[in-house]
Amino acid sequence: MNKERLVAFTDAIIAIVVTLLVLDLPRPDGPTLHAIIADWRNFIIYIATFFLIMVVWYNHHIIFTNAKKINRTTYWLNSIWLLLQSFIPFSASWLSEYPTSSVPGFFYVVVTFLWAVSFQLLDRNLEKLNPDLVMPNRYAFPLLYLSYLLEAILFIFIPILAVAVTPIMAGGIVVVSDFVEKRHARHN
Amino acid sequence: MNKERLVAFTDAIIAIVVTLLVLDLPRPDGPTLHAIIADWRNFIIYIATFFLIMVVWYNHHIIFTNAKKINRTTYWLNSIWLLLQSFIPFSASWLSEYPTSSVPGFFYVVVTFLWAVSFQLLDRNLEKLNPDLVMPNRYAFPLLYLSYLLEAILFIFIPILAVAVTPIMAGGIVVVSDFVEKRHARHN
Amino acid sequence: MNKERLVAFTDAIIAIVVTLLVLDLPRPDGPTLHAIIADWRNFIIYIATFFLIMVVWYNHHIIFTNAKKINRTTYWLNSIWLLLQSFIPFSASWLSEYPTSSVPGFFYVVVTFLWAVSFQLLDRNLEKLNPDLVMPNRYAFPLLYLSYLLEAILFIFIPILAVAVTPIMAGGIVVVSDFVEKRHARHN
Amino acid sequence: MNKERLVAFTDAIIAIVVTLLVLDLPRPDGPTLHAIIADWRNFIIYIATFFLIMVVWYNHHIIFTNAKKINRTTYWLNSIWLLLQSFIPFSASWLSEYPTSSVPGFFYVVVTFLWAVSFQLLDRNLEKLNPDLVMPNRYAFPLLYLSYLLEAILFIFIPILAVAVTPIMAGGIVVVSDFVEKRHARHN
Repeated sequence: MNKERLVAFTDAIIAIVVTLLVLDLPRPDGPTLHAIIADWRNFIIYIATFFLIMVVWYNHHIIFTNAKKINRTTYWLNSIWLLLQSFIPFSASWLSEYPTSSVPGFFYVVVTFLWAVSFQLLDRNLEKLNPDLVMPNRYAFPLLYLSYLLEAILFIFIPILAVAVTPIMAGGIVVVSDFVEKRHARHN
Repeated sequence: MNKERLVAFTDAIIAIVVTLLVLDLPRPDGPTLHAIIADWRNFIIYIATFFLIMVVWYNHHIIFTNAKKINRTTYWLNSIWLLLQSFIPFSASWLSEYPTSSVPGFFYVVVTFLWAVSFQLLDRNLEKLNPDLVMPNRYAFPLLYLSYLLEAILFIFIPILAVAVTPIMAGGIVVVSDFVEKRHARHN
Repeated sequence: MNKERLVAFTDAIIAIVVTLLVLDLPRPDGPTLHAIIADWRNFIIYIATFFLIMVVWYNHHIIFTNAKKINRTTYWLNSIWLLLQSFIPFSASWLSEYPTSSVPGFFYVVVTFLWAVSFQLLDRNLEKLNPDLVMPNRYAFPLLYLSYLLEAILFIFIPILAVAVTPIMAGGIVVVSDFVEKRHARHN
Repeated sequence: MNKERLVAFTDAIIAIVVTLLVLDLPRPDGPTLHAIIADWRNFIIYIATFFLIMVVWYNHHIIFTNAKKINRTTYWLNSIWLLLQSFIPFSASWLSEYPTSSVPGFFYVVVTFLWAVSFQLLDRNLEKLNPDLVMPNRYAFPLLYLSYLLEAILFIFIPILAVAVTPIMAGGIVVVSDFVEKRHARHN
């Protein structure tokens, strides 16, 4: 496998997915401020999903930059990860249409959760192939999974806040991991 | 011809085609589990088509990575291959709308079959230009064509299973070819 | 200007434009062979436009690969060329809806003609900056413009044949130019 | 951060955004010249927005080509910039539907203004990390913000002219900056 070509191909798919998200934002029903404010729930879902994908791109970028070796399994795990990712605009669009229902919310949690699991499998594959590649934060995935649980619970009570949980948690993990990595680098 | 630019251009088109597929997944008719399960046929068609394209990308990647020389004919064969590939979302979308009819199924088989034939022509062109480039599995294309025949027959009786035949067969060929290649590498 | 980044950006836009074309193919009105054959005009328009863009990509590729120097004017001429190109899916879509009317046909000719003119300006800019870069076929642009005239006339009488004129002519020019270039290379 | 991968990813998103713009051009209501001329306002909005994005790509290109160092903050500022950019097709589409109303016009000004602010933050981050990287024109951002104010005022009186203000002003700033940079280079 040529790592550069795989990474460029993956990035093109992520770029399209993140841009397709905006196509599902409903056009306001008139030329008034009221019409655009009426869609505030869709804006929150859009922005949260946009940042979730950006956080994950950042992590994908980190592990692939550091990895020197990849193999066929990497390709297939990356493909499964991309497949699950492709359901995100679909799932965000369903949620946007029924922002106060819990079933589309649970579906969104399930899709992004499975997407995170496939990312962990991809990460493990790369760590096995590149023993030097140790993720700085060993609590990253457990914390992420906890945030999905929290998100699922919130979808029962305050659906509109729920979508924001995972991007915030994932962002927090990136910041902490980065801090740990820097301290680690200073000590060695 | 600059191989890198051609490959990057081709990858961008494949990335868009594979992502457009998901746009044709119908949005569920309500915020219920029942509404999303009702579209299960579309999910199978989507996932099977996604993996078919991913298997083919893998092979395209292999032959272009190994090829050192390409010429103007390579470009045109690659363009025909891309044209046929661009009919896949169209054909998958038609099939999704009528998942139990056989004509859209046959059309899907014909499109993906012609796409495979154009890939074989592309492969032959590259093998001629690069005599070292021998595909490890000489049965790959005959087996692939057999799977299309099987798929066409299944579209008469159990349409929904039919779409899965070719990705599974193509995936199997990749695994076997890879195994043959490794054994071959060990012996030399 | 960084040539590589400009070329990659341009290629991404061309890849999206060529793939958006297929989105405008109307889905057949039923699961029958008759329904898909009813749209034969749209298929011809689609395939002709696809190949027209592929021929032009090939030429864009040639001049940019050979050019060593580019400047700010190159960027703006390339942007105008991309703007005109972005009207092609729009124009092909309008033509597809009224394949037997001549106004959408003339509009298609005007759009692709202006696109060719902007390409000639881009070519001249690159030839000035890179005196070594001489297009092998000095009749290429006059012949291309003649083909647009022919196409415009055909749109009055046999609209459906008209769209095929320019890709065939442009393809012919590529083949001839390539032949001239090879003979030229052999003589020097 | 790998600068090349970030730049390629960003370019793919810009390429998609600029191409999605054309999808919102309404198809003419018939095969007549009158039908296509009826949409002249949408063409102006489309062309102005296309050039605005192209001018900004040019500047993004300049600062990233010159910058040698980037960090995590660069990534997040770039992501915020991309998020705001993704609202441009949405906002241009709303404006296209109500080209004579001022609220969609103000929204368009606000979106492109915030987008410019996020670009200035990105520029400052890169200037801090790369002390050699000094933008040639220190009046660029104040002039740009002035043009937004002018545009907002014009949206009250002559909405259709308003969209053209910022691309023209931004283009002018590029030309002037370029001139200053060249003179500066000659003097040193």
